[in-house]
Amino acid sequence: MNVVIVGLGNIGGSFAKSIRHSFKDYKIYAIDINTDTLKEAENHGLIDKGYTNFKKIIPEADLVIFSVYPMTLKNMIENYAPYFKPNAILTDVTGVKESIIAEIEPLLRNDIDFVFGHPMAGRESRGLEFSSREIFQNANYLITPTKKNKDENIAFLENFVKKLGFGNVSKITPEFHDEVIGFTSQLAHVIAVSLINSDDIERNSKRYTGDSYRDLTRITNINEKLWPELFLMNKNHLLHHISLFKEQVEHMEEAIKSNDIANMEKMMAESKRRYHDLHDLEYHPED
Amino acid sequence: MNVVIVGLGNIGGSFAKSIRHSFKDYKIYAIDINTDTLKEAENHGLIDKGYTNFKKIIPEADLVIFSVYPMTLKNMIENYAPYFKPNAILTDVTGVKESIIAEIEPLLRNDIDFVFGHPMAGRESRGLEFSSREIFQNANYLITPTKKNKDENIAFLENFVKKLGFGNVSKITPEFHDEVIGFTSQLAHVIAVSLINSDDIERNSKRYTGDSYRDLTRITNINEKLWPELFLMNKNHLLHHISLFKEQVEHMEEAIKSNDIANMEKMMAESKRRYHDLHDLEYHPED
Repeated sequence: MNVVIVGLGNIGGSFAKSIRHSFKDYKIYAIDINTDTLKEAENHGLIDKGYTNFKKIIPEADLVIFSVYPMTLKNMIENYAPYFKPNAILTDVTGVKESIIAEIEPLLRNDIDFVFGHPMAGRESRGLEFSSREIFQNANYLITPTKKNKDENIAFLENFVKKLGFGNVSKITPEFHDEVIGFTSQLAHVIAVSLINSDDIERNSKRYTGDSYRDLTRITNINEKLWPELFLMNKNHLLHHISLFKEQVEHMEEAIKSNDIANMEKMMAESKRRYHDLHDLEYHPED
Repeated sequence: MNVVIVGLGNIGGSFAKSIRHSFKDYKIYAIDINTDTLKEAENHGLIDKGYTNFKKIIPEADLVIFSVYPMTLKNMIENYAPYFKPNAILTDVTGVKESIIAEIEPLLRNDIDFVFGHPMAGRESRGLEFSSREIFQNANYLITPTKKNKDENIAFLENFVKKLGFGNVSKITPEFHDEVIGFTSQLAHVIAVSLINSDDIERNSKRYTGDSYRDLTRITNINEKLWPELFLMNKNHLLHHISLFKEQVEHMEEAIKSNDIANMEKMMAESKRRYHDLHDLEYHPED
């Protein structure tokens, strides 16, 4: 099996390390615009060979993992399309699905199967140097099958990522993917950025933080070239989630304004119940 | 030196473990309403002896650490006042300072020095069983001196908590304490509770989370008997911070609505700069 990873950043590099570990007999190739990155990956044995010119290796690829920005992906597929090996399987790591699938599928030859995927394993530090096998361990993986996908290729991707160490692998519709990711991932980024940007810099707040503030702002080392694009690709869902979140903030604000301890207790007891559900813990309200 | 810890929960228990480790010659006593907890702490050698009746040990205490709810603290001081040892030093762990100091100081005898403090080391799991020395290591500690405090007693508390492992020990006014804690701690809790409560339970979102959602909701296992009280004790500061935070969310919401990528990039670049400042990292905008 020849695997080609397109884009050898944090996620692409983590794929290379994971595949090397779990599939000893696979050949791993990479395409990147940065020759230093490719050389480094070759020198560390992460990849068998790196290429800046896709035409030299894409025709050999049984599996292509596109680990690139959404905008780049569409252009690449347009350029790569005639060169794919017959019956090649393609996959991606894009954080929003419905719009990208609508753009990509019409560009594909009938013998090529693009099974869209989303490893939920982003990190706040970018680049090959911060990639690791560990970030995939027990992480969630989302696959969004379309009518064009062959069952055996969906099953192949599912088994492949499970062997790389992912935990829950869910097969969901692109619509549901975008709805739920708008909540668990994009809304979280909107909140974290808004929190750290609402700080008064003169206060030098960092001397007065506990773990809570550091937890809530960990993802603020955000890639500003990627996330605005993701937000707009999922505009309607994200705006809906922001509005539901603001409602909750306003309930709490109202309870504080009116000294309504009973209502605050109710909201906190509910959040505690949900915390236990999220972490599969038994809930004892008296704890 | 006889230390009495009042309230042997997570923070009180962590004090016992830390003092045992750092001050081998100190005697450690505890007052708690739960005799099982006291027995367990005695059996593990965390404390020399536990009491349910404060009158039996408070007259012996050189240092009293009140690790109890704010409402309880005031009642305790009223009851304990006649029994304190002359020249005893008292301290607390309350998360809001201005109002509690105004209530407590008039109740104290002139020979008693209450140096108010705030270890920023809360944990989402409560009780002695989750207490540990580790949670104090390199955590921030805030001391809010008042005009009544003796310099040598402030210096004593500062050195004492540094030896227990705390990192930055800041001496700040009660007013500034409440302003900054309203931001770094209380606002963070408002946000986390609002986020998890805005989830659609039917969606079973936990299968579709990455680390970001888990980080942002870690503190939602919140103590609903404590936090409403803290929120109301710091009402004005907290409402101000909520309103500044909401403004930032609305800037982002507006940028998404109007497809304003440039503005989103600007906000994210700013959050990235602030992330680097928070973590004392060099900032390279191109990373």
